[in-house]
Amino acid sequence: MILEKNFSNLKIILVEPSGPLNVGSVARLCSNFEVDELRIVSPKCDIFSLEAKKMALKGQKFLDNCKVFYNLENAIFDCDLVLASSGRIDVSKDLFFESSENVFNWTNSFKKINNLAIIFGRENNGLTNDEILLANKTFNIPTSKNNPSLNLSHAVSIALYELNKSSIRNSSQELKVYNLASPKQIHDSFLDIEELLLRVGYLLKHTSKAKIGKFKNFILRANTSMHEINVLRGIVHQINWFLSNSKKN
Amino acid sequence: MILEKNFSNLKIILVEPSGPLNVGSVARLCSNFEVDELRIVSPKCDIFSLEAKKMALKGQKFLDNCKVFYNLENAIFDCDLVLASSGRIDVSKDLFFESSENVFNWTNSFKKINNLAIIFGRENNGLTNDEILLANKTFNIPTSKNNPSLNLSHAVSIALYELNKSSIRNSSQELKVYNLASPKQIHDSFLDIEELLLRVGYLLKHTSKAKIGKFKNFILRANTSMHEINVLRGIVHQINWFLSNSKKN
Repeated sequence: MILEKNFSNLKIILVEPSGPLNVGSVARLCSNFEVDELRIVSPKCDIFSLEAKKMALKGQKFLDNCKVFYNLENAIFDCDLVLASSGRIDVSKDLFFESSENVFNWTNSFKKINNLAIIFGRENNGLTNDEILLANKTFNIPTSKNNPSLNLSHAVSIALYELNKSSIRNSSQELKVYNLASPKQIHDSFLDIEELLLRVGYLLKHTSKAKIGKFKNFILRANTSMHEINVLRGIVHQINWFLSNSKKN
Repeated sequence: MILEKNFSNLKIILVEPSGPLNVGSVARLCSNFEVDELRIVSPKCDIFSLEAKKMALKGQKFLDNCKVFYNLENAIFDCDLVLASSGRIDVSKDLFFESSENVFNWTNSFKKINNLAIIFGRENNGLTNDEILLANKTFNIPTSKNNPSLNLSHAVSIALYELNKSSIRNSSQELKVYNLASPKQIHDSFLDIEELLLRVGYLLKHTSKAKIGKFKNFILRANTSMHEINVLRGIVHQINWFLSNSKKN
């Protein structure tokens, strides 16, 4: 489902993560969303611990191949475009944050990016102002004012989802193949349905047209498939057959 | 930042979760995204354990006030609109899944929803086909083909983010007024329909479940209104009445 990416290489960068469960969860997400590399700046926990591995599941190779750096500058040295996530609400007025959706739409407007990086800060304090200034743009995920602070891996999941979705939206979408019933098939089925409903007294001859019209509109609106309209016809035939065989005369 | 919601009450429903860390993480997300209630169907872990509470942080009240149900039907009894999440790729061809973005845009096109519910399945197996048929729509979060399976709380975070974002996007748009039949109304109608189809011999007792499931899926997908489901019930009652009055004995 991940199509037409405009970047060759996507790196997720965690700055001083302190929870091994979070690091493991992020590794799993890297696998879920086809990230190319996990980079960690000065980890504050054992990123190779059993706890981390248990959360990573199929993403364990991202832990095994993880690159560790001593500062953020070194971790982004080879990146062409760098985005940063911030959940902070106490930010300096000079820093300008945009919504995640806008930032990823903007990211997808480039023709070609070689190395794209997304930075996530510490669980408790996020990124410092200096670190934020190493990114081209900083995005904010809209949450409740009462409890805005997202878990680290939840912020990563939302960012990767949004980046992926923007890629899909911007590519020419693959078309669904769906075996729709033709208007003629629907029309023909309704001749049978109308006859049955007149027979059982649900419809009266002089008002049936208006009533059946509503029902037909419903079937058309429902994008009914050829198979589904055949099921409906089968039901009508079976009720007719049953009526003919259980009548008094 | 959460503005102009078109629903009064949002319920997150977890079906048989087995990981206390996941349940705690989801409780935190409920707080991050202003969910009103967490409901759990037959939990397979201790949802009040220390592990769950540690992940919940400020969302602990969602664990404390969590409502537990024995089956999914009871958990959605009061909901007007029900969405289900599915990560399954082995689904029956008759089930129709849409992208998360489309489903939440559709959800936000209603003028007013009283109780909105979003269902998430088991960590390993997701939801059964029968459970999926209790929802108006089922959405799928696009992920990598090689490792499509998202962690439960990541799926919840993405769904809540998308719902929240769609609310913001649609808040200025003109809203559709549409009187949708609730999943409970549809479920009840199908008890009548199934009875009739067994009576006339269209369905056989041992295969009826699978066949009726296809029909139900079609009705759900068709955005059937309250008026339309009543028309369907009226037809079924009339045929039953006619059958009873035209039988030999």
